[in-house]
Amino acid sequence: MIESAAILGLGLIGGSLARDLAAKGVHVFAGDRDEAAVRAAAAQGIAQPLTWNEPLDVVVLAVPVVAARQLLRELAGRMEGVRLVTDVGSTKRSIVDTAEQMGIGDRFVGSHPLAGDHRSGWDASRTGLFEGAPVYLSPTRSTESDALELARELWTVVGAVPEVMDAADHDRRLAWASHLPQAASTALARALAEAGIARSDLGPGGRDVTRLAGSSPEMWADILVDNADEVSTALASMAAHLSATRDAVASSDRDRLRALWAAANQWHQESP
Amino acid sequence: MIESAAILGLGLIGGSLARDLAAKGVHVFAGDRDEAAVRAAAAQGIAQPLTWNEPLDVVVLAVPVVAARQLLRELAGRMEGVRLVTDVGSTKRSIVDTAEQMGIGDRFVGSHPLAGDHRSGWDASRTGLFEGAPVYLSPTRSTESDALELARELWTVVGAVPEVMDAADHDRRLAWASHLPQAASTALARALAEAGIARSDLGPGGRDVTRLAGSSPEMWADILVDNADEVSTALASMAAHLSATRDAVASSDRDRLRALWAAANQWHQESP
Repeated sequence: MIESAAILGLGLIGGSLARDLAAKGVHVFAGDRDEAAVRAAAAQGIAQPLTWNEPLDVVVLAVPVVAARQLLRELAGRMEGVRLVTDVGSTKRSIVDTAEQMGIGDRFVGSHPLAGDHRSGWDASRTGLFEGAPVYLSPTRSTESDALELARELWTVVGAVPEVMDAADHDRRLAWASHLPQAASTALARALAEAGIARSDLGPGGRDVTRLAGSSPEMWADILVDNADEVSTALASMAAHLSATRDAVASSDRDRLRALWAAANQWHQESP
Repeated sequence: MIESAAILGLGLIGGSLARDLAAKGVHVFAGDRDEAAVRAAAAQGIAQPLTWNEPLDVVVLAVPVVAARQLLRELAGRMEGVRLVTDVGSTKRSIVDTAEQMGIGDRFVGSHPLAGDHRSGWDASRTGLFEGAPVYLSPTRSTESDALELARELWTVVGAVPEVMDAADHDRRLAWASHLPQAASTALARALAEAGIARSDLGPGGRDVTRLAGSSPEMWADILVDNADEVSTALASMAAHLSATRDAVASSDRDRLRALWAAANQWHQESP
């Protein structure tokens, strides 16, 4: 049973988690560089300001990946009595490594909820964000079963669907399933900007493809560098597939284009 | 005033146009290789089967671009008394050229409504599809003003917003605004398929980026070949922007990645 949780970072993910946990009766304590967010959460009865004198079952680092590693180094000494330390970042190898280096691998489980959108900040946070969302849980080499069970409980309580996945497997998978679509959407946006095409010139389909171009530069620079090896591989594959399309177009090869589109159709149909 | 219109092709675009015109009191006559679609439209009181004995103000070729050119060649001799011949294709240079070659340039205006999605066929057609949608109108070198005014009326009646655009300008613009996003979404889908990532593994953002991968191979092979020169240029630009991303990732250049994402943000913000 989780009775109390500290959430560091009241952005879209941390703020939404605070709202849902508070609604389930968990005592939530919050910290954020932006004191206005902490005050707003307190004023709405969602969280009290974190003083580190509270007894805490769970500590959640809900900040971007580089900041999460730094915070974990700074705070590792304060984790006495805490049963689970977790994060919400989009990469898992580096944070799991850091937890092991800091000697709290037994109580650490990396979390990555597949929720949220291109918006950010406390004002974008909302209840129900995690309802039905997959959340990947990456243990360290020494995570104890109590910590892993508590991580499952944390996310199940707010409606997410936990799946345990080795950190390296996670980072490879996410390079394709999340980081590549993000990079593709952004590269397309820059190509269109350079050609003088506005987003308002696009139809509904083109607007869908470029929606992720509104995502945070800070957050994504961190994620991509943190997962550079896997992301490079994925980007190279996308470039090769784009090049195959261009070859077929340049040679007016209708049959080849039909085959390329049919392959994409087949993949799309599996989950339309 | 448009009193009667023939619509050749009762797919998503032609079927939706038939529904909206009929609702506005236009006598609609329909033809389609798929006789079941014509029967369905007749049964619902939307259109009567086209016999070519009707007096027709307008003829709309609502079939894919290559088929539209062929149909125009076959039917050019039957256009006596018709005040406007138009199409709905995603490219405009080739159909405008064909109309001029067939000697009906005076009564031809190419149309391209920016409406619809990856679905197709009569069953996907619906009322209101064109409400608020831009529609590009490309005249020939000899289009008469009556034909152009009738084209404006045709689309305004169903709620679309006409904009006259030279066929070459149209094809360049659409290569970027429509054909490139389509090709990018499809290339991404194939890269993900190859990596063993299912569409159901993606978050909402990745699903948006790959939504167009469900589009018709037949239709898109035709469009891309018909606009091959402009599409090749656009694909090369996208490849260059993807390559710039990969270089920044491979060299762990956070500042460069932030700048790339910030440029995409700026473009996105213009029409979020």
